[in-house]
Formats: sequence, structure tokens, C-alpha cells
Amino acid sequence: MSQISTKPPSGMRDFLAPELARRRYVIGVIQSVYESFGFVPLETPTIENLSTLLGKYGPEGDQLLYRLLHRRERLKRALESGAPSEIDLSDEGLRYDLTVPLARVVANYRDLPAFYKRYQIQPVWRADRPAKGRFREFYQCDVDVTGAKSLLADAEVCAAVAGVLQRLGFADFTIHVNHRELLRALVLGAGIAAEAEGTALIAIDKLDKIGREGVLKELDERGIGASAGQALMQALEQAKAPGFLENCAGGDDAAAAAARELLELQELARCTSAGEVLEFSPELARGLSYYTGPIFEITVPGLAGSLGGGGRYDGLIGMFTKQQIPAVGFSLGLERILLVMEERTMFPALAVGPQILVCRFPDVDAADALRAATALRAQGLRVELYPEADKLGKQLAYATSIGAGFAAVLGKSELDAGAVALKNLATGEQRTLPLNRVAAAL
Amino acid sequence: MSQISTKPPSGMRDFLAPELARRRYVIGVIQSVYESFGFVPLETPTIENLSTLLGKYGPEGDQLLYRLLHRRERLKRALESGAPSEIDLSDEGLRYDLTVPLARVVANYRDLPAFYKRYQIQPVWRADRPAKGRFREFYQCDVDVTGAKSLLADAEVCAAVAGVLQRLGFADFTIHVNHRELLRALVLGAGIAAEAEGTALIAIDKLDKIGREGVLKELDERGIGASAGQALMQALEQAKAPGFLENCAGGDDAAAAAARELLELQELARCTSAGEVLEFSPELARGLSYYTGPIFEITVPGLAGSLGGGGRYDGLIGMFTKQQIPAVGFSLGLERILLVMEERTMFPALAVGPQILVCRFPDVDAADALRAATALRAQGLRVELYPEADKLGKQLAYATSIGAGFAAVLGKSELDAGAVALKNLATGEQRTLPLNRVAAAL
Repeated sequence: MSQISTKPPSGMRDFLAPELARRRYVIGVIQSVYESFGFVPLETPTIENLSTLLGKYGPEGDQLLYRLLHRRERLKRALESGAPSEIDLSDEGLRYDLTVPLARVVANYRDLPAFYKRYQIQPVWRADRPAKGRFREFYQCDVDVTGAKSLLADAEVCAAVAGVLQRLGFADFTIHVNHRELLRALVLGAGIAAEAEGTALIAIDKLDKIGREGVLKELDERGIGASAGQALMQALEQAKAPGFLENCAGGDDAAAAAARELLELQELARCTSAGEVLEFSPELARGLSYYTGPIFEITVPGLAGSLGGGGRYDGLIGMFTKQQIPAVGFSLGLERILLVMEERTMFPALAVGPQILVCRFPDVDAADALRAATALRAQGLRVELYPEADKLGKQLAYATSIGAGFAAVLGKSELDAGAVALKNLATGEQRTLPLNRVAAAL
Repeated sequence: MSQISTKPPSGMRDFLAPELARRRYVIGVIQSVYESFGFVPLETPTIENLSTLLGKYGPEGDQLLYRLLHRRERLKRALESGAPSEIDLSDEGLRYDLTVPLARVVANYRDLPAFYKRYQIQPVWRADRPAKGRFREFYQCDVDVTGAKSLLADAEVCAAVAGVLQRLGFADFTIHVNHRELLRALVLGAGIAAEAEGTALIAIDKLDKIGREGVLKELDERGIGASAGQALMQALEQAKAPGFLENCAGGDDAAAAAARELLELQELARCTSAGEVLEFSPELARGLSYYTGPIFEITVPGLAGSLGGGGRYDGLIGMFTKQQIPAVGFSLGLERILLVMEERTMFPALAVGPQILVCRFPDVDAADALRAATALRAQGLRVELYPEADKLGKQLAYATSIGAGFAAVLGKSELDAGAVALKNLATGEQRTLPLNRVAAAL
């Protein structure tokens, strides 16, 4: 029987109280800032139909989906069929991100507000190879506006995540912005064929990981000629020059329209908390295929990868309903935020666990100790009761070990007087006071 | 493309903002009461190894587990093996309850407090046939003490759930208590063989659903003779007589020890909020096999089934570690609590969504409107900004439709004066006031 592993599965984590206190603190800040922007909460189920999930994240994403095995009759039929394939064995999977479920929800509930501003803070699951800081179950904290074409919506999702990070104490983050139409123009302008655009974007997306040479190599390997690759890298480099967007905006092509949108977005952002931190980054590509307009990504110095990302995806909801509904959103990665905050010790003191442990001398009845604990709890205190009739020294050592600030010791004389001996476990100081005055005294 | 279903899978639900507000309210109360008893939070992963889950819930439970399909190489190997079986295709599943993960956690983390008082509020998944009020993803709200033999722990978990229900406004619930050892004595005393005890308990557990005749029929069908069945039903009936526990407690057998425990539990409960609501119910059996001592179940008039249940399970943790660690716990069912509270309209008014919608006349710039929204948010208000340049009437109608209490209207004159026209959407009353005084004025 003792052969069963007691560890969580690979890539999964148990969260004990101190870590949960930090997670809840960050989630509380995110929730409160998102709500100040008028976003309302949404939660979608852990399990989605595979028809909802497949084909939205690209082939690599489809590979990383967790799929649920059929049960009972359907499993039996599939297995008896002789040579079952993956699609015979499963038609449901686990939530992979929060954007696709949102698109499904917007398509499904016709009475949502025309501008549906929702936030969603839930775990997602990806069967990725676990690594330091990469888990198979992790939380995303998304904020999206559907139904709005205006760049005000783009500016507001940027402002919301900037507001979150500022409230958490981040002073050095950057929101990189780029535009899919601008990237597209640069790709085509470099002589890359339209059908290779996606391939080129995926390669550019790796620039900070594999460097310029690595990207050129990948472009070459994927059939995009060396000269086109060189031209693209050069165009991206030139786009970093000051005044690039302003110069570009004067034209009358798609790139000019995109540049004007980025300039307008920057102007709007300056009316918000995101103004100081927005930065045009022509090399930002974002991996996901569904983006159609501005794209975003947040970095902080010293962290490989990003704290979050997002963008405009005006086509995704249309995959679930005939109506085309524009949308823009931003997703914060909870695990990365926690990682950086822990490294930088950015957490305030967080109260966890009982404030008081009720202890009793051996001649005091369990019932009397329980009655005292009940009275202390009625005063709004977090109170644990030592359950066994152990020696007092053992009880006090236990109080210290669980981090209770105080022990309330009950002897016969305290009981008779309706009092407790309240011991401060940090200072050792002890005083006797009426049971019903303990909360007031703390 | 519009062929994709936009509904959540069968038995799963999307939670929109008004429903989430109610769920969060109830969860907040549960959390705060549990913490007042000194319990600390735990969260375990959605995905567990099947070796952790299987064999803990009985054969019916094993059937209802969601299992995850292998991926990539392992799936390929399983499929190529010719005739794969269920166990070749999966070795992970979804959390089925919160008790088994707790047992795993207690076995895994050796530095937990000797008396680990944890609460856990998370969803669980069961591939049950969906029905009214029965979902495949639903929340449990558990509170458990491990490491304590004392009945103080049993009394405290009862007090904690009673405290929750009282705080939520329930005035008519009952916590039924019984004892597995007492039931066992009655079963054996009726002439039923020891190996048929589990079968007998499962039948008794259905008494409130299928009635006395139904239970007798099931006992008969499962090979427990009619006379033994009759004797058992009679013994259960006799156990309802006043004074039964007191009479029984005088003996020196297992039943007497169990009766003494129940009497002591009742005495302890009287020192807490559970005192008035605890009731000895000799017919209470509880389906799960792992209980070893007192068992609990909460009912309210008018609800078929229970709001929650629990009991002592001194053997379960020993299935994960050589050490035998006693444990007792109680689980509240969130969905049932919400169902009854909705039927009885027990919810307080809950604030959802933005308090103010910022609207602008067509001659006001988007940037100015955004600046005003930023200023209002900085005052701690929940503020939505109408994103498009629509007619004011449309914007105001929208404000009403999303339930915003106020519209802050910006015209050129307000802008010049650093003011907004604040319209109370319930009364129609409107007044102009300085932008930086809006929060104070509300």
C-alpha cells in the first residue's frame, strides 16, 4: 500500500498556506484593478469540447492539449473497433487558454452587453515539457473587451495591466507594442510570399531567444530564401529608428494605417497609467495566429520571457458565430508575476493561520477549552484549539511552530474568573485578562 | 465554421458576473468562518495520478473518474500495441474529491503541523449522468483535521460548518450524526455476515430515497436474507427511541464505545454553534467506504439530499504512508447551498459591474474621455468608458442596460471646467460637479 507516490503529477503543484496567501494577494490586486476599469468576472468550465479547442492555437497547441478519455460504452465501442485513433477515444479536453472560451461565450450568450468587458482568472493546462518556472497547470489573468472597434479598448486593456503591475509595486516594466499589419507589410516588403507570413512571424517571435543568426537560420530552413530573410531583418532594424512610425504614417497603404493606429494608441495610453511604459517594438511578433491588429507583450529586466501579452483579434469570435465581433485583450501570467515578486521580495506581510492557540492545563475539561475558543472566535479572531491533553510545554511549543502570535492558556483559576492567560509568543510577556476582552486587547 | 457548438459540454457551466457574485459571496463566508476556526487553505492540482485516485471511492467511484488520454509517444505505443485497454491509455485523472488529495498531501509533506487543520475550496469532476442540480464539475468546500484522535476535532469540524450555514442565514438545518462502529454492531447483531457489511451500509444509505421496502428489496437482492434484513430495519427503528445512546453506552462492547463517543461529541458540540443542530440519526450510513468513526450529514427541509457530509476516516492516510494518521472532516457542497439560497432569496445585495459609465458628446475627444475615466478610477470607483462615438442617447441607454448606477457625461463646457455632469440613472437627476469630487459625492 505504501507504494503509491505521494507527489503531485509532473508539472503540477500543491499549494500550501503561505504560498496561497501570496497567490491570493496578487489575484486580489488584479481583480480589484480590473474591476476599477469596469470589467466583470467570467468563469468557464475546465472541460471544453475538442471542437471548441482544436484549430485555434496552431498545430503545436493542438499537440499540447489534454484530452479526456471516453468512458463506459463509448470507450468500449472505440476499443472494440479494432484500431482506434486519437479522435475515436476522446471528444473533450482541458481549457488551454482563456481567450477561446471567451470567444465561445460571446457567441453563445446573445444578451451580453454590446461591449462585453470581462476579466477571467483561472488555471489552464498544457502538456508541455515541465521546466523551471514552466508548469502544466498555471493561472492566466485575462482582461478583454469584445464588440469595440475603437482603440480606446486597446488602450484600456493596456492601462488595466499597467495598473495591476504598478499596484503590485513593479516600477521597471515595459509594454512592448507592435501591429500585425505593420509586420505583415514588412514581411511582404522583404519579398517573402504571403503564404509564408505565419512561418516568418513564428521565427521573428524567437528573436530574443535565438538571436538574429538563429532567426535567419530558421527562416532559411523553412524555405524562406537567405536574401529575403536578410531583407526582413534589415527592415525590422530600420523600423527601430526614431520617427519611423511618424514617417510611415503618411502613406496610404496598410502599413501606414497600422502606424497611425499605433500612434493613436500611444496618444490614448498617455491618458492612463500605461502612458509611461508603452514602447513601440517592431520585432515583437507574438506566436498565436489569431491576432489581427495591435499586439502587446510585457517584459521586466532580468526575466527571460514575458509577464503577459495580448492583442487585437477581430476574427476569432467569428469562428464560433456568423457575426464578426471585434475584440482585444491582455493576459497576465500569474506564475511569472509571483516568480519575480518572490525574487525581489515584493510581498507585504500577509496574515496566515490562527492568531491564537487555546491551550489548557490537564485539569481543565476539553469542553471548557472549546467554550473559550468559541468565545474568542465570536470576537472575530482566528483561533485554533489544541486538541489533545498534552503537557503545557508541548502545547506552547506547538503554538510557536504554527506561527500563532499568542497562546491563550486556561487553568482552573482562569476558568473560575472567566479569564485567560494570554501569552505573547514573540516576547514571552503574559497577562491575564477577561475572556471577552481579548480581541479588544490585541 | 458556424457549425461549432458554442455551449459548454454536458454537465458543465459558464458562470457570468451575477452568478459569480453570488458564488464568491458564499465562498467568502465559508473561507472566513473556516479561518476563524484556525484552518489554513490548501489547493491541490486538478490532475492527479490514477494510482492516487483508484481504489479509494469504491467501484462506482472508479467508474465516474475522468481519465486523461496519453499523448504523443505513449499514445502511439499504446495504439500500436494492437488491442489497448483503458489502463494502457491513461495514468492520470481529474480530482474526484478533496479528501483523497488531502491524504496524499499529509503523507507527502512531513513538515506539516502535527494537527494539520486545512480547508480547501475547489472544483471536483465526476462523469455522472447530468441532471437538475447535478453537474459534472462542482465545488466542494472541505474542512479537515488530521493527526488528532480527540473528539474535539470532530466537534470543531461540525461547529465550523454550522457556523458557515448560520452566517449565511440558514436557520433550519440539522447535522445528523451516527457512528460507523454502531452501525456495524447493528448490522452484525441482525445476523448479517461481516463481509456483507459494506453492502448493507450502501442499502441503508438509500433509505430516504427508496424507503424501507426498497431497502429490504435491495438487501434481499444482494443476498442478505429477508429475516436478517427485517431484523436490521427493526434495530435501526429501535435505535431512534429516546435514551438509546445512554442505554447502549453502559455496555463494554464496540457499540457501547461508539455510543459513548456520540454522547461525548454531543456534549462538546453544545460548547459551539453546532450544539442546537446536532441530532443522532441511527439510519445515517454515508456511501463512502473510508469512514471509521462518527459520520455526519446536513439536511434542510425541502431539499432532497444533503448540503454536505463528512466523518472520521482514521485509515485513509495510511493508504499513502506507513504511518497511521487519524483524521476527521466535513465537506459542504457549494452548488446545493447556492440552490437553496436562490430558492429562498437569501442573498444580500451584491455589487457587480461598473458604478459609472463615462459618456461623451461627439465633439469631445476620446483622449479627454479616457483622461476623465482615469481620474475617476483613481478615486477608487469602478468606471467603464463608452468606447465608440455614438449618440448620447444610445450611450445612456447602454449605461442603464449594464446596470451602471450613474453616467458621467462630458461635454465641451464640462471639460473646460474640469467637471462632469453626473446623471443618476435611477432617478434621472443630474448635477454638474468637479471631476475630482465625484467619489466623495457618491
